[in-house]
Amino acid sequence: MTESMTESTTQPTHQSTTQAVTTQTLTTHSLAREERRSSIATQTDSGPGPVDGPEAAVILEGARAMVDPELRSAVDSLPGAMRRIARYHFGWEHADGSPAAGNAGKAIRPALVLAAAAALGGPRAQASAVRAAAAVELVHNFTLLHDDVMDRDTTRRHRPTAWTVFGDTDAILAGDALQALALRLLAEDPHPASATAAARLAACVVELCEGQQADTAMERRGPCEVSLDEVLAMAEAKTGALLGCACALGALYAGAAAADVEALDAFGRESGLAFQLIDDVIGIWGDPSRTGKPAGADLAARKKSLPVVAALASGTPAAVELAELYEVPYAGGDLEPTVLAVERAGGRDWAQVQASERMARAMHELSRAIPDPEAAGGLLALAEFVTRRST
Amino acid sequence: MTESMTESTTQPTHQSTTQAVTTQTLTTHSLAREERRSSIATQTDSGPGPVDGPEAAVILEGARAMVDPELRSAVDSLPGAMRRIARYHFGWEHADGSPAAGNAGKAIRPALVLAAAAALGGPRAQASAVRAAAAVELVHNFTLLHDDVMDRDTTRRHRPTAWTVFGDTDAILAGDALQALALRLLAEDPHPASATAAARLAACVVELCEGQQADTAMERRGPCEVSLDEVLAMAEAKTGALLGCACALGALYAGAAAADVEALDAFGRESGLAFQLIDDVIGIWGDPSRTGKPAGADLAARKKSLPVVAALASGTPAAVELAELYEVPYAGGDLEPTVLAVERAGGRDWAQVQASERMARAMHELSRAIPDPEAAGGLLALAEFVTRRST
Repeated sequence: MTESMTESTTQPTHQSTTQAVTTQTLTTHSLAREERRSSIATQTDSGPGPVDGPEAAVILEGARAMVDPELRSAVDSLPGAMRRIARYHFGWEHADGSPAAGNAGKAIRPALVLAAAAALGGPRAQASAVRAAAAVELVHNFTLLHDDVMDRDTTRRHRPTAWTVFGDTDAILAGDALQALALRLLAEDPHPASATAAARLAACVVELCEGQQADTAMERRGPCEVSLDEVLAMAEAKTGALLGCACALGALYAGAAAADVEALDAFGRESGLAFQLIDDVIGIWGDPSRTGKPAGADLAARKKSLPVVAALASGTPAAVELAELYEVPYAGGDLEPTVLAVERAGGRDWAQVQASERMARAMHELSRAIPDPEAAGGLLALAEFVTRRST
Repeated sequence: MTESMTESTTQPTHQSTTQAVTTQTLTTHSLAREERRSSIATQTDSGPGPVDGPEAAVILEGARAMVDPELRSAVDSLPGAMRRIARYHFGWEHADGSPAAGNAGKAIRPALVLAAAAALGGPRAQASAVRAAAAVELVHNFTLLHDDVMDRDTTRRHRPTAWTVFGDTDAILAGDALQALALRLLAEDPHPASATAAARLAACVVELCEGQQADTAMERRGPCEVSLDEVLAMAEAKTGALLGCACALGALYAGAAAADVEALDAFGRESGLAFQLIDDVIGIWGDPSRTGKPAGADLAARKKSLPVVAALASGTPAAVELAELYEVPYAGGDLEPTVLAVERAGGRDWAQVQASERMARAMHELSRAIPDPEAAGGLLALAEFVTRRST
């Protein structure tokens, strides 16, 4: 399993520290640019998965069908204004309150909860974890509502963000209410694992907050004032933590042993970091027609994404050049010199090797907890899915 | 008990609807202005309490001593940035991280949790409820952090608010983290009531959010577009709900019967509404040297406080005059005509009768659950305290 998940990447390394990986990667990789492009294409194509288990799309659809009634019923228990804002945010209503077709996202996190419960405890454990899956989805959406306010993002799931429609105050309050709702669901759940799950989800929220704080604080600093360790820790807190928590909650609801719960958490975290690394690569080199974002948008915004910080930290002449470009705000024009500087400083190669490293670790953790590849199939398919997509 | 709590107010009424109370109050009260002033003075003086139980100040100090170690240990479990912002907000640190003398507020809510637990379950129940008391205080402070951002309030407990020091993003995130921390404390509490308490506290957070949403939405509307029922419902959600929840949690930790838990919740809610009514009266007629706020500050801000909305809804000539004044923003000058218009429209009398009504209901609920006046003494002293103070 581990090999098949990492087959499209080059030279997985096993050094114990990120810094060692960086140095090795930045000095030994010298593939031509076009080769690298094809490598990214391989990684982002949705070809046949490496496992014979169910397709991720089917798993996600199944999870959405199981979780949606619980989610809708929870949201509909909110009082007037909170319900209206939440229903808009989930895509179930237009701003005027009329019904909408609904685009509540891909339900990756609830699908991970349910897949982990099924892998470790079978269909009965999966059925018992539906409320926990809804709670994780509520927490995810609380963070989206707040992040959009803080980041001033105006579009979410192809619709205007809640704060642009209802104002900052209402979006913040609706986020607050969704966090409370998530933890209420678990507190009211008679399942023997619910209290442990609630404590874990609450601890995860704190980690998400610290990650978002680190992210926004780093964006205010100069390009050379951010270390690679910092940006990796931020990405783990902001992206990895909730994927890990989702898997851990599924394991808890399956009555898994503590070591297996931690292994599942690590599986989700490492998959999440792999996702973030690939997402950042796509943010620079992805095909705009596939990503829906203009080419180099992250570079134009001077975003300190993982490949950029790796490039800046490389100690190469290209790093100096990149730092000079990043010191001044983007004022339009050709982004190609910036793209090339990140590449020549080794940012792209580093990110790809890191991603494959992370996936290898994820697979290792998964196989520790669930040695049977068939039982692990659903989680594997989901991990493949998140690391092959950019949105 | 009931009588002694309401002795300083006039003509308690017992109509079943607020509207009936309003109409009656607005037409029958015709005390001279100076008499009314002395009535407020009586209500806000800190004379001897009507009960022979422990003084509120002693109870509050005791609660602070019991809860602070739990609160500090919980906050210190937060990661770097979240901990720093929270410690600043609680007054334990200056903005630069150096230790501060600390002014974390009066701990009324944790004191209510502990007093309710003691009243219904004795010292052992009280000791078991310390974590729940800390959770309630964390929720209160999460809402303060967020409310200050939304309301753009720059001072809290005589210090610059967190958002003015750390920015909106960090203040919002620290609030999010405090909510999560509160619910984590309860989820990790092995007490048999902890799950029920967590569900109740989470439901209360939703109510607080709806209350704050209603408050900010009403402030954007015209003076005659807000009904008295709306503003009373808002005040109950924003102020009454958490005081009620604090009392209910204490009852839960004492293993009280469901009816007693609800009676304690109602006691806290009604006391909270009485507090808000008196606070609003003081916001217009209070002595600036005692309140620390300039005279008529609420009127200058065109705040739709309870006496103002009651006055506007009175159907009197003074209501028309007040609406005209409120239609235009305050541009400096004499506020006396506005103060007089609220008085002549009956806003002040209504608020005072409402406050005494609410206190009577609070006492009734309390005596239902705890018929022994000695056992109820701590809760009574705290209710007296909150309704006699304005800050």
